[in-house]
Amino acid sequence: MIRTGFQAAARLGHRRALPGGPRIPPGLSSTSAFGYSVDSRVSRFCLQKTELKDYALPNASWCPDMLSLYQEFLEKTKTDDWVKIPSFKSNKDHIRGLKLPFELAVTSADTEDTRLFTRGFQADGQGFEYVIFFHVSQKKAVCLFQPGPYLEGTPGFAHGGSLSTMVDETFSKIAYLVGEGLVTLSLNIRFKNLIPLGSLAVMNIDVEKIEDQKIHLCCVIQSRDQQTVYVKSSGVFLRLPLEEGLSP
Amino acid sequence: MIRTGFQAAARLGHRRALPGGPRIPPGLSSTSAFGYSVDSRVSRFCLQKTELKDYALPNASWCPDMLSLYQEFLEKTKTDDWVKIPSFKSNKDHIRGLKLPFELAVTSADTEDTRLFTRGFQADGQGFEYVIFFHVSQKKAVCLFQPGPYLEGTPGFAHGGSLSTMVDETFSKIAYLVGEGLVTLSLNIRFKNLIPLGSLAVMNIDVEKIEDQKIHLCCVIQSRDQQTVYVKSSGVFLRLPLEEGLSP
Repeated sequence: MIRTGFQAAARLGHRRALPGGPRIPPGLSSTSAFGYSVDSRVSRFCLQKTELKDYALPNASWCPDMLSLYQEFLEKTKTDDWVKIPSFKSNKDHIRGLKLPFELAVTSADTEDTRLFTRGFQADGQGFEYVIFFHVSQKKAVCLFQPGPYLEGTPGFAHGGSLSTMVDETFSKIAYLVGEGLVTLSLNIRFKNLIPLGSLAVMNIDVEKIEDQKIHLCCVIQSRDQQTVYVKSSGVFLRLPLEEGLSP
Repeated sequence: MIRTGFQAAARLGHRRALPGGPRIPPGLSSTSAFGYSVDSRVSRFCLQKTELKDYALPNASWCPDMLSLYQEFLEKTKTDDWVKIPSFKSNKDHIRGLKLPFELAVTSADTEDTRLFTRGFQADGQGFEYVIFFHVSQKKAVCLFQPGPYLEGTPGFAHGGSLSTMVDETFSKIAYLVGEGLVTLSLNIRFKNLIPLGSLAVMNIDVEKIEDQKIHLCCVIQSRDQQTVYVKSSGVFLRLPLEEGLSP
């Protein structure tokens, strides 16, 4: 989840948060700086050459269903308008070359070994295995997700919190790419069926509406054959621009 | 999250899930077997003597704020109607001595080293540090939560998914204790401010309504001084009884 702009909103919120949402710094027009196209955000975000480890690559833990669907989508990136979104250890790696919207406090965590929550489990297959494909012109995405044994809720099945996490994480990446949506304002999750640990769940994410200040998204998580719906969800993100320049 | 009854609902759902919610097995009246009192559920759930490791105990990673508030609530358990809820590695440990509602399929995960999602990070302080206190007669709870550096979203702050996870996890424990609420039907999360990694967040959970089939809960997450609201949320759980007898 990229919510760097919200850091500042959070700091202002320590003085007093506005009812109904985070405080926006005075004088900042949320629409004033969305000058980049989706294409330019994609090319910046989806680094083709980097020394960073991309966690969204197949490993020995992936089930055959996940591997084969991954290959299908990878083929589509060659001829269609799909791109594979890389996944790094931290959102700091994703916003390289961009400056956070506001002057930010240095937190104690800045010096620690932090990890993006969805990449926090280090052994392959233990936690979140996933890869996101984004269709640039249609502004939609597919995420292939395989919950590992450390994401358990009901014995044998993925915890509802892990599904909410995947929804928030995929929403945040897509919200950024389509319109610099950086801050999760709300999530609504409806659980329909449990997802067995180790199996493939397919997430279809759509952008419902892009407003001046907000982006509305929705997501359905289901089995590959679409016979079982696991989760239906929606979310709203606040748009806040990143700027050219190095992050602090 | 305890959602054992939902396992069967999930299996039935593979045939076809009902619109708007999980399928309830035919002939099961959700109110037919809620014969236990809250007290009896608490005494069974909060094992006083067990060889199981309780993860809801202080360790060196806890910040001073978390430690001092923990001690305050621990004092209250001696004279007031508060109880400390233990936290084991798996929900299988929590439902010992009880039988799951329906015949359950053996999943491949049953033989794996699985972990409750919120206890999946093994080193103290890396992931979710939390402890839940429950007020038996007032049916409310407080959870002290300290997000570790592996729960990062925005650099330096807790991922929205980790907050949704804590909401689901605390809701599920309370929903079970007050009325055998086992299955998360929906969660609604509104984010107000970011929570710095390593700091204390205090969650106040209330039971809003107990219906024949559903339990409605709400939660506010805020700073200890109550000056900063981080999250407001609500959730609905389906009631399904566990039965006497050993789980398969």
